[in-house]
Amino acid sequence: LSYGIDIVTGVSESLVETERTRHRRLREQGSLDREALIGILRAGFVCHLGVIIDGHPMVIPTVYGLSPDARTVYVHGSVASRSLGARPDTEICVTVTHVDGLVMARSVFEHGVNYRSAMLYGTPRLLAATGDKLLGLEHLSEHIAKGQWAYARQPNKKELAKTSLLALELEEASVKIRSGGPSDGDSPDAELPVWAGVIPLHTSWGAPEPADDLKPDIDVPPHLASFGR
Amino acid sequence: LSYGIDIVTGVSESLVETERTRHRRLREQGSLDREALIGILRAGFVCHLGVIIDGHPMVIPTVYGLSPDARTVYVHGSVASRSLGARPDTEICVTVTHVDGLVMARSVFEHGVNYRSAMLYGTPRLLAATGDKLLGLEHLSEHIAKGQWAYARQPNKKELAKTSLLALELEEASVKIRSGGPSDGDSPDAELPVWAGVIPLHTSWGAPEPADDLKPDIDVPPHLASFGR
Repeated sequence: LSYGIDIVTGVSESLVETERTRHRRLREQGSLDREALIGILRAGFVCHLGVIIDGHPMVIPTVYGLSPDARTVYVHGSVASRSLGARPDTEICVTVTHVDGLVMARSVFEHGVNYRSAMLYGTPRLLAATGDKLLGLEHLSEHIAKGQWAYARQPNKKELAKTSLLALELEEASVKIRSGGPSDGDSPDAELPVWAGVIPLHTSWGAPEPADDLKPDIDVPPHLASFGR
Repeated sequence: LSYGIDIVTGVSESLVETERTRHRRLREQGSLDREALIGILRAGFVCHLGVIIDGHPMVIPTVYGLSPDARTVYVHGSVASRSLGARPDTEICVTVTHVDGLVMARSVFEHGVNYRSAMLYGTPRLLAATGDKLLGLEHLSEHIAKGQWAYARQPNKKELAKTSLLALELEEASVKIRSGGPSDGDSPDAELPVWAGVIPLHTSWGAPEPADDLKPDIDVPPHLASFGR
């Protein structure tokens, strides 16, 4: 049962290669394309942040944003930040995954998942200076909803102090992509009377829904109205 | 900027409480409901598996399935399995997250994400016996696509030997759920001329797409046709 999402990766040529990523280049489905990496990061806003806390692995869902120059990922999160505050050399792994469909084959073993995934590795900086934090938050906010930073009320000092933000340079990363149909069409299994193909999984924005307590006469601004289209 | 997905959790009353989960009960948005946990697990099939490999945190996207009695989660994955083969006491963290929408508030700080997330902790068993592995695969396969196990060709011995499967008992877990609109409608920010509400994110199955090399006259079986509806 190769339901597809093994860790099989590649490294962008322009990123640093490490022992951790190099040996994975040997295997199938790795992508060496930096553009693919950036595309995966731009297509999402929720990542799974891996940290070691008191010796235990933890995987925390949180939001992230990519800087406009695509060199830095900003990750929001207090638990990892507390851990990092105590140990500034803490390594993290940030994984972003988009699931595109189920691959149904003639044999259970050949079933899989169509997906795009990026794993980022490194030791992040815990942003402390007001200017750094504000810029990081702007990048994060604009990544998620472009135009919202200038439209909504920006954080004040008190709010900034309550916000934890990590900055991870995009230096070590790996990408794995699987697309297309099942691969057992040229095997003896192809003679079986079993349907094979892909069941696509779609993710789409709905139309913005106003808050119950929204004051009348405030329309959805254009930069948010475009989400649902 | 509380883009919502901090780690803030609760524990099902019927699950074992540990130091790791107990202190998190103090905070908001934790859910103590075992049904909520099961619901989150049943609603998905891709998890993010956290393991420590050579001292580094790794977060690996992979497929999982919940057993029909909702006591065991089966996780597919070779990297974690290799690590576990070397060290059978390896702890893992399995996180399942569903993103339901973006919460847009009057202030950037109050922005958030509507989501449902479950984090499972423990030391899994690496399934080795043929019977155990076959049953685990059946549970995993049926979790993802009910009816497919009996319909497609089941794994033979060679395929089973190539398959790595972890079984994690549902003993320590935490759940976090956020839903609803922004919370700054009763703050001074409510006077601002800023739209507030939710932009929902929908995930839906498309109609099954036959493989290019599918033999003619093989219809989509009913258990797969229902995916797109």
